[in-house]
This record gives sequence, C-alpha cells and structure tokens, in this order.
Amino acid sequence: MRILVTGGVGTVGAGLVQELRGRGHDVISCDLMHQADEVGFSLRTDVEKPQYARCDVSEYRQIERVIEELGPFDYIYHCAAEFGRWNGEDFYETLWRTNAIGTKNIIRLQEQHGFRLIHFSSSEVYGDWPEIMVESVMDDYEIKQMNDYAMSKWVNEMQIRNSAIQYGTQSVVVRLFNTYGPGEYYSPYRSVNSRFLYCALNGLPWVVFRGHSRTSTYLGDTVRTVANISENFIPGETYNIGGFEHHTIEELSDIVLRLTGADPKLAEARDSEVLTTRDKKVDVSKSVRDLDHKITYSMEDGMRLTMDWMKKVYGL
Amino acid sequence: MRILVTGGVGTVGAGLVQELRGRGHDVISCDLMHQADEVGFSLRTDVEKPQYARCDVSEYRQIERVIEELGPFDYIYHCAAEFGRWNGEDFYETLWRTNAIGTKNIIRLQEQHGFRLIHFSSSEVYGDWPEIMVESVMDDYEIKQMNDYAMSKWVNEMQIRNSAIQYGTQSVVVRLFNTYGPGEYYSPYRSVNSRFLYCALNGLPWVVFRGHSRTSTYLGDTVRTVANISENFIPGETYNIGGFEHHTIEELSDIVLRLTGADPKLAEARDSEVLTTRDKKVDVSKSVRDLDHKITYSMEDGMRLTMDWMKKVYGL
Repeated sequence: MRILVTGGVGTVGAGLVQELRGRGHDVISCDLMHQADEVGFSLRTDVEKPQYARCDVSEYRQIERVIEELGPFDYIYHCAAEFGRWNGEDFYETLWRTNAIGTKNIIRLQEQHGFRLIHFSSSEVYGDWPEIMVESVMDDYEIKQMNDYAMSKWVNEMQIRNSAIQYGTQSVVVRLFNTYGPGEYYSPYRSVNSRFLYCALNGLPWVVFRGHSRTSTYLGDTVRTVANISENFIPGETYNIGGFEHHTIEELSDIVLRLTGADPKLAEARDSEVLTTRDKKVDVSKSVRDLDHKITYSMEDGMRLTMDWMKKVYGL
Repeated sequence: MRILVTGGVGTVGAGLVQELRGRGHDVISCDLMHQADEVGFSLRTDVEKPQYARCDVSEYRQIERVIEELGPFDYIYHCAAEFGRWNGEDFYETLWRTNAIGTKNIIRLQEQHGFRLIHFSSSEVYGDWPEIMVESVMDDYEIKQMNDYAMSKWVNEMQIRNSAIQYGTQSVVVRLFNTYGPGEYYSPYRSVNSRFLYCALNGLPWVVFRGHSRTSTYLGDTVRTVANISENFIPGETYNIGGFEHHTIEELSDIVLRLTGADPKLAEARDSEVLTTRDKKVDVSKSVRDLDHKITYSMEDGMRLTMDWMKKVYGL
C-alpha cells in the first residue's frame, strides 16, 4: 500500500515510518525541515528514490502538492502537530495554525481524494477526568480541556467526525498516552521521560511533581499497534493507545536514577501542578481487541533503550 | 470608563460603540480596515480626536499596540471574530487565526494588564442540543459542536475559563442568539434575517429550510443588555442573550414577504440542512436577572427598521 506519514521526522512519525516500511509498504513522509532523501519539486532530486517531502501542513498549497504529486495514497497517518501542553501555551499561534488549520487542510483534501485517515490525538482530550479513561467517556460526559493543546486535539476529533457525517470520509482516531523512546530529542517541552533522562545524563536538576500518575508506552509498542490499523481499518473508531499499568512520576524518576546512576539530590519533589491531569488511568481493551495492542517492553527496558540512544546522539 | 470594543465596525460592535458612547463612556474601537477617525500610529492624525485603531487581533503586535498606546482600558468588549457557520467552513484558516489565536492574544494581554473582558460567544456552542438552551447545559452534558465556527467559540470559552483559574483574570461571556439589525451588510454568509431581506428587496430568490426554529434579537435590544454588563460585572458568569419567543424560518420569510411586498414565489421551501441545529430554544432568565435584559422590538418592528436601513445603504 502507498502511505503518507505527516510529521514523519517526529518521535512517533519516524518510528511509524520505520515500522510500515518494515512491513513492505511504500511510505512517503513529510515534515517541516529539509532532509537528504527529499524530493525536489522544481529541481532535480539527486538521491535515487526520494521518500520525503518538505511540507508545512498548515499551508494548504504545500500539503496539496504532496498529495497530488506524490500520491495517490491509500492511507495517511497524520502525526504532524504541535505537541505538548506548555508548548501549546507558549507557542499558541503555531499550535492553532498547525493543529486546527493543518488538520482541516488534510480533511478538505480527504474529501476530494478519498484516502483513509489515521489521526493522532492525545490523552489530553480527557481533561482531568478522574476515573478510568475509556474512549466512550468523551461521548458520555462533559469534559473541559485544560489547555490549548488539549483543545486543539479535541477540535481535530470533532472536525473529523463532522466531515464523516457530512461527506462520508473514513477516519480512525488514536489517543496516545505518553509515548516515549529513541527519536525523542530533548527540549524542556518534551515528555517527562525524555526530560528526566536528559537531565540525569547531564547532571542537571529536575522537578518531580508529587501525586501525578501516568501510563507510559515505549515507542516500539505504540507504532506496532498503530501500524496494525491499516490491516483492520474500522472507519469512525477511536482507540486509546497506552500501557496496562500506571506509575507515579516519582517511580519514573527513581527508574531514571537507577539506570543512569545520577545523584538522587538532582530530583526535587514538588507539589502538583495547576491545570494538569493528576491521574491518567487508561482502558486499552478496545485497541487490544481490534488492533492486537501489546506491551512487550517494560518501563525499565524501554527507558534503558532510550538512554542508550540518548547517550549516542548527544555523545555522552 | 475607558472601553475598547474590538470588531467595532461589525454589526454588534458598531451598535455597542454607539450605545456605550451614549452612556458617556470613553470608547475606542478597532477593526481590520482603515477608517476616517483612525489614529495614525507613526504619523500625524488629522482628525481632532481619533477614536478608532486599525488592528487585526490575530497579530499580537497590533493588538498589544492598541492596548499599550490607547489604554489602559477598564473593559474590553471582544466582538472581533470570524462569524458564521459556512463562513467558518469556507474560510477556516482565517477563522482559527482570528478566533482562537486572536482571543488568546487578548487573554495574554489581559493577564498582564488586568482589564475586564466581555467576550462574545455564540448559541452555536450548544450544538444540536434538543432541549432548552440554558447556560448550565454546557457544564452538565457532553455536546459536540457541529462546525469549526462553533468549535472556535467553545475553545474561546475554555481559554477564558483556564486563564481565570490559572491567572485570576476576570471575564464575562455572552452567548448571542441570532442578533440582526441595521449595520448588517449583506453577504451570503450573514444571518437569515439579512439574507431574506436583501433578496426580497432585490427580487432574488431565497431558500427557506423547513423545520428549523430560532429566536432573533434586534440589535438595539442586544447592545443595551450587553452594555449593562459594565454596570454589573460578575466575573466568571456566562449569559445567553436572545429573544423570549421563537419562530420558524418560514415565519421569518413570511414577515419579509409582507414587509417588502416581494413575490412569494421567490421563497423556495426545502428540507432541513445537514449539521445545522434544528431548534434553538433559549433560556434568558439569567440575563434578565443580572443584566435587565428586555425585548422592546417585535420581530416585525425590528425587521422594518432593518429594511429601512438596507434600502438606504443600497440605494433601493
């Protein structure tokens, strides 16, 4: 099958491209920056078979060109998004352009070209829902999103739903719960997993908010499950993709200390953050049922692989 | 008091500026286009006392400049928005920039400058809620917005709420139900009231969707109630502003036929539209209680005044 992965240089996108190519699919990816294996739209491409296109999905002309010149695509995995709660608060102009306008651009192109869309949403849509996060709570309860990032992800889900009702487009939504792994380059806006590891490896202090719990999923497990969607595509479905167990942020920090051997004094405990979900308890039974979702990496193993990658890319 | 009205050239904004000035307030307005009574930021202003500033609220620098150079303001009435369901579908890039980014810009400035904000939301946030639209249903029931315009308005309400929680900003939200009146220049994206009148006056056919009901509020009644907020400002409140009665779209069309004397064959009845709220039944008791909300214009009177204005501005 011919597949486009938007945001193909991001953590999840890059892992997914690798997984889908490993299954023999013909995969093109696109993202914001230039890459060596990039197509030259108006000039000669030097590499033998370009598999990447530079494209800002918030610019209709650019994403239309990718779809029209490199398509037609059977599936588009739409990973391109501004990611993260504080990133969305600090860069909200970019967030709304990329997430709301960018996704609407792709939906408009879907209405014309008929590809199937797999859209990446986030556990953030559940707000501070205190009980188990099962997909249907978003239909049954009024939940207010606690930050612009979460809102933009929920907006995308409604945009996709309305297009399916009005134009019959076929889409599946996945809500990721804290995926981490190799390929997640550090910035202060990244997942706690990435931040704690980076700080520990560099002798920098980090803050551990008490009383928050999360599930973490290693990238390899997330992308296998998500890749399975192209083999059992049920239009209109929404899936949680997360772990079976949950851990506190303190426990995650302890694993990092153990793996890196960093000084425990670097981890400073503080009381919980405002407008952040305290506990995320996820029900993944639907993705187990339809997508053969499995957890094959323990937190300890996943974090060790991530640490090894991080040491390599940062020369530590 | 010193008051800024964003979107001050729009239908509601212009009516509100007039109402607030009539009460003796010192009112500055801003909007996208140049105006005669505009301030020259970097050049000499010819008019004696400029009361308007050109400003696109989605450009942070431009709205910051208005607030810093023409403020401080006690209140900002934030009317600037891309308006209407089909307008939002056809111009979604502009919608998300103006509504989501523009409103966030104003909230960020509110967090720094401390003005009180009155934000204009829409009955569209209620989606296709089938029962009476009372303000609290948005807290009690899960409602999915049926178009990007509605989503952007709901996003704004959550942005304002989160800023109040996190930074203690003081805001009031009004949800307008189909306000019409003089100042609503015709385009195909305007209210049914404006469209039917314009078509009737110009001998053009119009489509009447069967089985939809609405409340309509004449501009003069809406702006009086909204102006009252500055005299009884209760932070965190949300108010419906609408009529006490509701009418079908067929009834509205009949009033237009009667007032204009247009050929009844111009009004073509059709079955209901997809993804549009069928019935809007509004509870306005809270705005009656806190804001002395009153309806002083019948639909017939309001439509006659609108017709007279329309005949004048279009030279009919």
